[in-house]
Amino acid sequence: MVQVSGAPPRLFTFAGGDSGDWRIVAMTAVAGEPLPDASRLAMIAGAAGAERAKWRLRGITSNERYVTRGEKSELVAKQQDLGRPDSTCAALIPIRKTAAWWALAQDERRRIFEESSKHVRIGLKYLPAVARRLHHCRDLGEGELFDFLTWFEYGPSDAAAFDALVAELRASEEWRYVGREIDIRVIRAEG
Amino acid sequence: MVQVSGAPPRLFTFAGGDSGDWRIVAMTAVAGEPLPDASRLAMIAGAAGAERAKWRLRGITSNERYVTRGEKSELVAKQQDLGRPDSTCAALIPIRKTAAWWALAQDERRRIFEESSKHVRIGLKYLPAVARRLHHCRDLGEGELFDFLTWFEYGPSDAAAFDALVAELRASEEWRYVGREIDIRVIRAEG
Repeated sequence: MVQVSGAPPRLFTFAGGDSGDWRIVAMTAVAGEPLPDASRLAMIAGAAGAERAKWRLRGITSNERYVTRGEKSELVAKQQDLGRPDSTCAALIPIRKTAAWWALAQDERRRIFEESSKHVRIGLKYLPAVARRLHHCRDLGEGELFDFLTWFEYGPSDAAAFDALVAELRASEEWRYVGREIDIRVIRAEG
Repeated sequence: MVQVSGAPPRLFTFAGGDSGDWRIVAMTAVAGEPLPDASRLAMIAGAAGAERAKWRLRGITSNERYVTRGEKSELVAKQQDLGRPDSTCAALIPIRKTAAWWALAQDERRRIFEESSKHVRIGLKYLPAVARRLHHCRDLGEGELFDFLTWFEYGPSDAAAFDALVAELRASEEWRYVGREIDIRVIRAEG
């Protein structure tokens, strides 16, 4: 894999082990099998690094699959970048959707995603407090454990709001198609 | 990468060189840079094999990105599988779309893809004569040369119809977003 010069990185590796800039404070298997316990999380641009970690999950940023132009404009206007100094809390949420989800046609998935589950609408309520980056795994290869890795960053005073955000989404029709979900909460490690 | 047991393969490698079951009879750079000349094409399930070929392109089958339930039902009812004994002609068409395409929102891409360009509607006219399999490359990694590899199989008596199919698509609004396209025609090698 060749990094296109000048282009921002798209492929990221999240590694759980005993090193990394983020200290793991909770790992919850919301659905399906848990991941092995780890004390630190590393987020690395590219596919190499942290080869001795307990687990490594890769994902790649891509084009949006469901959002309309209007929704995209609203998101772009309100969202902030990752890496804000006061965002000392973060979450990594790997998700695998069921075969039934992937067998749906595009219009069926869109209806569930937004018209029923209000995925964008809910997310917008928590902007700009919560910054996020979505990584796709499903089309990286045949053996991926998850379909998506979403990385969220927020400040300590927004931790309760973040809990409300994920609770709203988990109550939606879309989440009936989630077969595996791990909720990994981290705080930025000192020094 | 672990092959999920029982699941059909999703990842395929197309290799151009001096071996493979298909004899290359024409390679045309429709847009952008050509690929190096080769005499044979191999289609291999998985990511390994043909390491000494002149070029190797990988792609993975995935969920549909644009088709509605109604369109999907029409396609499924009319289309036939690859590997028909009388389909001795085939084409591999690698395509890369422009950054402008990928910056569009989902509803914008759908409008161009079908409401304007009639991508599904055109394809349906040539079923079941032309069998096809679409492979995605864009989200395999950061260094992929193409976004899609489409593989088509048909009989010699449908070769002119296949030319008409690709000509119709190339005249569409969608094709204004094609930055690179190679049209590789092959026939099944004897013995």
